[in-house]
Amino acid sequence: MDLQFELTSEFLAKLRFAIETQEDDFLRSTLDDLYSEDIIPILYELEIHECKYILQLLGVDIVSRILPNLEEKTRNDLFELYQPAEIAVFFNEIYSDDAADILNCVPIKMREEIIANINDTQLALNINELLRYDSACAGGMMAKELIKTNINWTVKQTIEEVRKQAENVEKLYSIYVVDDNDVLLGRVSLKKIIISKDKTAISEIYEPDIIAIETYTESWEVSEIMQKYDLETMPVINVQGKLVGRITIDDAVDVIKEQAAEDMQAMSGVSTRVEEDDSIFKLVRSRLPWLIVGMAGGLLGAAFMGLFEQKLIIIPAMAFFIPLITATGGNVGVQASSLIVQSLASNDSFEESTIKRLWRVIIVAFINGLVICTIVMIFVLLIGHPIKLGFVVSISLFCVVVLASIVGTITPLLLDKFNINPALASGPFITTFNDLLGLAIYFLVAGFLYRL
Amino acid sequence: MDLQFELTSEFLAKLRFAIETQEDDFLRSTLDDLYSEDIIPILYELEIHECKYILQLLGVDIVSRILPNLEEKTRNDLFELYQPAEIAVFFNEIYSDDAADILNCVPIKMREEIIANINDTQLALNINELLRYDSACAGGMMAKELIKTNINWTVKQTIEEVRKQAENVEKLYSIYVVDDNDVLLGRVSLKKIIISKDKTAISEIYEPDIIAIETYTESWEVSEIMQKYDLETMPVINVQGKLVGRITIDDAVDVIKEQAAEDMQAMSGVSTRVEEDDSIFKLVRSRLPWLIVGMAGGLLGAAFMGLFEQKLIIIPAMAFFIPLITATGGNVGVQASSLIVQSLASNDSFEESTIKRLWRVIIVAFINGLVICTIVMIFVLLIGHPIKLGFVVSISLFCVVVLASIVGTITPLLLDKFNINPALASGPFITTFNDLLGLAIYFLVAGFLYRL
Repeated sequence: MDLQFELTSEFLAKLRFAIETQEDDFLRSTLDDLYSEDIIPILYELEIHECKYILQLLGVDIVSRILPNLEEKTRNDLFELYQPAEIAVFFNEIYSDDAADILNCVPIKMREEIIANINDTQLALNINELLRYDSACAGGMMAKELIKTNINWTVKQTIEEVRKQAENVEKLYSIYVVDDNDVLLGRVSLKKIIISKDKTAISEIYEPDIIAIETYTESWEVSEIMQKYDLETMPVINVQGKLVGRITIDDAVDVIKEQAAEDMQAMSGVSTRVEEDDSIFKLVRSRLPWLIVGMAGGLLGAAFMGLFEQKLIIIPAMAFFIPLITATGGNVGVQASSLIVQSLASNDSFEESTIKRLWRVIIVAFINGLVICTIVMIFVLLIGHPIKLGFVVSISLFCVVVLASIVGTITPLLLDKFNINPALASGPFITTFNDLLGLAIYFLVAGFLYRL
Repeated sequence: MDLQFELTSEFLAKLRFAIETQEDDFLRSTLDDLYSEDIIPILYELEIHECKYILQLLGVDIVSRILPNLEEKTRNDLFELYQPAEIAVFFNEIYSDDAADILNCVPIKMREEIIANINDTQLALNINELLRYDSACAGGMMAKELIKTNINWTVKQTIEEVRKQAENVEKLYSIYVVDDNDVLLGRVSLKKIIISKDKTAISEIYEPDIIAIETYTESWEVSEIMQKYDLETMPVINVQGKLVGRITIDDAVDVIKEQAAEDMQAMSGVSTRVEEDDSIFKLVRSRLPWLIVGMAGGLLGAAFMGLFEQKLIIIPAMAFFIPLITATGGNVGVQASSLIVQSLASNDSFEESTIKRLWRVIIVAFINGLVICTIVMIFVLLIGHPIKLGFVVSISLFCVVVLASIVGTITPLLLDKFNINPALASGPFITTFNDLLGLAIYFLVAGFLYRL
């Protein structure tokens, strides 16, 4: 197969022509060369009836690998073209966690019809169980497919069990060990099973000390635990300690990526999780709130400066340096806060006291502030402004750098305390606040120096 | 063991007292309750000789699990207190990829001494091989520990091989299949081995179609492939197609997290990868460059406004709205660019044409611009400014929103074309540029309207 497959418009044109002219052999041989992951972007470029045409040429196994990774919209559009019974056929080969995720996205009536048409009663039961859980907790992340063995069994009995169940379980690294009541006791690795004698008792070779989580654990915590303890799979237990599912690392990776994307959006002032190709309305709605916050800040700044109108009339050159002051405050604040946000996210260090943190931040700000205000002082004098204005701008800049650093450090720590995503603090929030702070400092310093 | 362990200052005080009074039994029983991942943050809080005291109480297996995850500085400080031969003992239980990573961080003399003292000659050879690779490519990510079987063998022979090698390989999910020249042919899962008869030929049950990468593949590409194709491990081959190592998903997860952190820093104008607890000098150096860029922008703005001094003297109220104009330009630019950065990072969609992208962006900007400039117009009139000024501010804002959106969209696409991290575009770069753009628009609109 072709790992380096790249979707070109030429390839697409050929494909569409083949669909139109129903050259099934050509289509089949072309698609056979591709991984299911590479077929997905192709589907996005086709009309929905063309997608259906292609899916009908592919085996059920390929389609069932494509469906879970398809975008919700495309998938739901496709489902409209199928009967529930036809869709249910694909579900026989989809893992229970993916199946529940897909069904969570379709209208309730269709959901019930699909489930009713699934032949595998165990799978239907599993899906119904998973649908109960919130998708943002361990129960919503887990799959029901796993292999377990009884603590009282031998290696031979376990291998028999693997033979029976293994077809349903793809990512199989270890076998969970339970007691007669299904309570999780530990695990035994496939490696141990392979290298042990048939008669060996599972109780002799299993590892009792394993990390398991409960169904209600939040997904970010699940992903943190899997990363921290370097786990590929983690068993999920219910409140009675019974084994109810397992989570694989790929689900945790999705959570990590989703979180990084969310932080980035928070930092850039986009309020709801959007993608570039969402509807115009959604895109507008996601951006307007923070733009209005920024605007409110700007208007407040305008009102504030109104108080100093006389000063601006006497020294109009003061206006020239307003963007410098506000921009520096914003930049310094974002730099400071992003460092705190990252150290909060990595979360593995003992919580340093806020005082100790601030102290370092202030020293760094002092040095940066000195460098910047020296350069600016030179520039102001070179360009021929009076030395007094030079002092006003330099002293203000220095104060802005120091104060904005402090604000940038404290804000994310405060937000985190109140369980608000601290990444928000690195965004328009800090910028707006520091704009106002900068203006206030600038005009106060000017007021003070020009009175001397 | 205690999964929910939380490091408190009380716990630390107790621990330090026990170290001072050499209460080894207490220390041992306390540490036995902890996972190695939870011991690490404790070490960061202790003096280096206290760390050594603790490590000496722990078994070699625990220490060798701690060392790879320890921060470079702490680890190197610790190594100073040991003889190379003592350090080499730990290496006998560390995976070759982690071992190479650790040795890449110590002085060359120490590196050679440690390697010379490693008893396991195969491990020493493996480490030496891995040290040759750049850490940012597949060769630098891979471990040498893996299990392979010959295509001509049977299941029984393979199981014998697993028995022999399995002790060295912890994360074992599949066995690679090679020919007599070690050329990678495919893989066979442990599951298949377990459920197949002893006499079955490997050639009958192996999967020939597997994804492998070459040693020189860059690490971000490795991590992308592993995510896309949902792989837990991936074999690494050399240019002759020979199997030389394997990469596990945890290494790919590290790359994903590192990239997210890098993007966030790029966005916040912190130029080199720093952590909150780096040295003051490093922190200053990482921040100054972008602050100076921002400052240069501010000074350029000041010089530009100097051209309009007469206008500011006649209409001093024009100065009031400068922060509003610059802040809005910055915010809009960052919002627009972050969306492009994210869609570039997710990388799975067919590349939309820039024109199509821009079109959507402009529509969104139009709507946002209209809302904002209406609100501002109302405000300006309410506060009692002349209607002409209201028009100047509103029209400028509208233009700024539209143009800043376009700049925010094009810049990351351009940077990406030139292989520069597009996240940089969401940072001070865009803000600075849009500040200037905003000022230019504002004064040009004012110049035009006031001449009427």
